[in-house]
Amino acid sequence: MKIKGFKTAAVAAGIRYADRLDLGLIFSETPVVTAGAFTTNQVKAAPVVLDMERLKQGKAQAILINSGCANACTGENGMLAAIATGECAATALGIAPEMVQISSTGVIGEQLNVSAIVKAMPELVAKLSADNFDQVAKAIMTTDTVSKTASRSVMIGEQEVHFVGMAKGAGMIMPNMATMLAFVLTDAQISFRQLHGALLKGVERTFNRITIDGDTSTNDMILVMANGAAGNPWIDEGASDYQDIFQQTLEDLLKDLALQIVADGEGATKFITIRVCGAREEMDAEQIARTVANSSLVKTAFFGEDANWGRIIAAMGRSGVRFCPERVDIAFDDVVIVENGLGQGKEAEKSATAILKEKNILVTIDLKDGRGCAEVYTCDFSIDYVKINADYRS
Amino acid sequence: MKIKGFKTAAVAAGIRYADRLDLGLIFSETPVVTAGAFTTNQVKAAPVVLDMERLKQGKAQAILINSGCANACTGENGMLAAIATGECAATALGIAPEMVQISSTGVIGEQLNVSAIVKAMPELVAKLSADNFDQVAKAIMTTDTVSKTASRSVMIGEQEVHFVGMAKGAGMIMPNMATMLAFVLTDAQISFRQLHGALLKGVERTFNRITIDGDTSTNDMILVMANGAAGNPWIDEGASDYQDIFQQTLEDLLKDLALQIVADGEGATKFITIRVCGAREEMDAEQIARTVANSSLVKTAFFGEDANWGRIIAAMGRSGVRFCPERVDIAFDDVVIVENGLGQGKEAEKSATAILKEKNILVTIDLKDGRGCAEVYTCDFSIDYVKINADYRS
Repeated sequence: MKIKGFKTAAVAAGIRYADRLDLGLIFSETPVVTAGAFTTNQVKAAPVVLDMERLKQGKAQAILINSGCANACTGENGMLAAIATGECAATALGIAPEMVQISSTGVIGEQLNVSAIVKAMPELVAKLSADNFDQVAKAIMTTDTVSKTASRSVMIGEQEVHFVGMAKGAGMIMPNMATMLAFVLTDAQISFRQLHGALLKGVERTFNRITIDGDTSTNDMILVMANGAAGNPWIDEGASDYQDIFQQTLEDLLKDLALQIVADGEGATKFITIRVCGAREEMDAEQIARTVANSSLVKTAFFGEDANWGRIIAAMGRSGVRFCPERVDIAFDDVVIVENGLGQGKEAEKSATAILKEKNILVTIDLKDGRGCAEVYTCDFSIDYVKINADYRS
Repeated sequence: MKIKGFKTAAVAAGIRYADRLDLGLIFSETPVVTAGAFTTNQVKAAPVVLDMERLKQGKAQAILINSGCANACTGENGMLAAIATGECAATALGIAPEMVQISSTGVIGEQLNVSAIVKAMPELVAKLSADNFDQVAKAIMTTDTVSKTASRSVMIGEQEVHFVGMAKGAGMIMPNMATMLAFVLTDAQISFRQLHGALLKGVERTFNRITIDGDTSTNDMILVMANGAAGNPWIDEGASDYQDIFQQTLEDLLKDLALQIVADGEGATKFITIRVCGAREEMDAEQIARTVANSSLVKTAFFGEDANWGRIIAAMGRSGVRFCPERVDIAFDDVVIVENGLGQGKEAEKSATAILKEKNILVTIDLKDGRGCAEVYTCDFSIDYVKINADYRS
C-alpha cells in the first residue's frame, strides 16, 4: 500500500519492550492538508492536546507514532516529552516542528521514554520509503492480534484518487470518537474545510458506532493527510458531486478499518451487529443499539452462544429511550425470536442458538414506532477479555 | 430472625428445578402499612406492574415470591399468571387478593409455571411459622452463593423497635433502584407516608449506590411491611426525632443488605468502595464514582490486582462531569498513588499493589474542587463472571 508523495518507516526503538516495532513515521514531501478527530475524553494525553493546537493551521507534514506508552497523565513533563520527540523528528526531516503530529498509545501514567525515541530517530528517518506502510501498521499495535489496513480508489472527474488507511484498536473502544488510532493518506486534491467535514461525518457513522467495552481512551485520534498528487478537480465548496464521492469512499474505508477493530476486540470470538430500526429518531435507535452493545450480560450471553433475548430487552429498557415493549420484534439473522414483545418458543430459540454458533451475527431490533434506524458494531465478552485486561501491564 | 405478627414459609415447588427452595411466602396476621420501591427499567415484569398498582393503597398482608422465572416479557399471559398465583395465595390465606404482593426473579421471557405454584400452595401455607425467615431468604436465591439477611433494633420512645431484612442479588445490579429483591419487616408503628419516604431516601443511599455489571433488571423491588406491634409512639408528620431514628436504622439495615449483595457479586473476588470527594456537587461525585465503578477495564484490573490507575482517570474523563485532571489525587486505602494528576512512582505502586491483594479495597478520588462527596460500592470483574453469565440459563 502506498500513495505517491508519502513515505513511511517503522523501527523497534525499545520504548517498553525490546525487539518489537514500536515507533512509526509517516512523512509527506511537502506540507499537506491534514484534518483530525480526537478523543472526547476530558482527560487528554499530551500529544492529543499538542496535535489539536497544531492542526488549527490545517496542515502537517509528518506523523510520529509510538506504542508502549500513552504519554497521558504525565503533567508538564509529558508535554515537554511530546514536544521534544516532535522536534527531534522535525530536525531529522528538515521541516518545521509545527508540521509534526505526535501520536502515542499504551499504558497511561508513565513517562515517555524520550531517549529511546531520540536514539532511534536516525534509523527511522533513514528507513523512510514508499513501501513501509504495513510496517507502521504493525508498530502501532498494542493488544491487537493483527494489524489493520485498508485501501480504496475512486474516480473523481477524470482522475483516479487513492486512499490507504491503518488503525489500531482492541480495548478501550467505545462510541464517542475517537477510540483508537487511525491514519489515512490520500492523494486527493481537497480543501481543509471539506476534508475536515468529510472526516467528522465519516467518523460519526463508523468509528463512533463501534464498541468493545464501553471505555474511551485518553489518546485516541484519527488523522487524514491529503496531498493532492492525484490532480483531480479541486474538491471545494460548490463541488458537491465530487464531495459526495470523496465522502462515500472515505467513509467506506473508515468503516472497513472500524469493523476490523471490532473483529479484533480483546478476547472477541464473535462479531455482532446491533441494528435498531423503527425508532422515532435515528438518535433513539443509536442510543438503544449502544446500550445493548455495551451490556456485559448481553455480551457474555453471546460468548456462551445463549439466545438469551431477555437480556437484550432488559438493556433496551434502561437505555433512557421510550418505546413500547409490547411492540418489539427481535431477530438473530433471519430468525425472529421475539414478536410483539413475546418469545417465539423453543423452536425459534433452537434456530437462534444455531445462528449464535456463527462468527458473524446480526441482531435486528424493530420498535415499530417510526423510521429511525442505526447500527452499532460490537463483539462478545469472553474469558480472554478478562485475562487480557487483568494483566495488561505485566 | 423474626418479628412478632409475621409468619414466613418456603417450599421447593419445582418451578424450574426439582428439590430446590423456590417459593416463599411472607404473611402478616393483619393488613399492615407497606411501602415499595421498584425498578426504573422501562421494561417491567408483570408482578412489578401489579404490585405498583396495588401498593397505591399503602397496605398489604402477604408477599408471594418465586425464583426460577422472572415472569417478565410474558405479555397478557404473564399478568394473568401473576394475578392467578396471587389469588391462589389469597384464597389459601383467607385474605383479599389485593392484599397480596407478588415478586418474581429468574430468566426473562419464559411463562411462569402457574400449576407448580398452585400445587405447592397448601404445603406453603401449612408451613407458615415465625421461624422460617432464613428459609425464604434461601428460596429467593438465583446465582447468589449465600443467602443475605440482616436485623436491627432501636429504641423509639420507650419501646424497642425491630427490623429484619433479606435480599438477593448477584447479577444485573446497577444503581438506579431497584436492582435486586429485598424484603424488610418491622414492628414499628409508622404512617405510610413516613415509611415510604424513609424507604426511598434509604434506597437512594444504599441500593442505588451498588453496581455489579451496570445492568438493571426488569423485576427488582424492595418492600417494607410495618405492623406496629412494637407499640412505639407513632412515627408521623411532626414526630421528626422518631422519624430520624427510624430512617437511620432502616438505612443502616438496607446498607448491610446492599453490601452483602456486592460482596456476593457474580464471580466477585474483591469488594471495592469508590469514594469521590472534593466535587462541586454530590451529584457530580456520584456520577464519577459510578462511571469508575462500572468500567470493565477498571474492574478487570482489580481482578488482576494491577494498580492501573490510568484506567480510573480515563473512566473519570468520560463520566461527563467537568473536573481538573491536574488536581486529582487517587489513593488505594492510605497509599496515595496519584497526586495532582501525576503517578507517584514505583514505590507507591508497589505499596498500592500490596493493598490490591486484600479482599476489601477503598479507592479515594479527591477532585479538590468542592465539598461534594459520594460512595459507590462494586466488585471486580473476574473470569468467573463471564463463565457464570455465559451459561446462566443452562
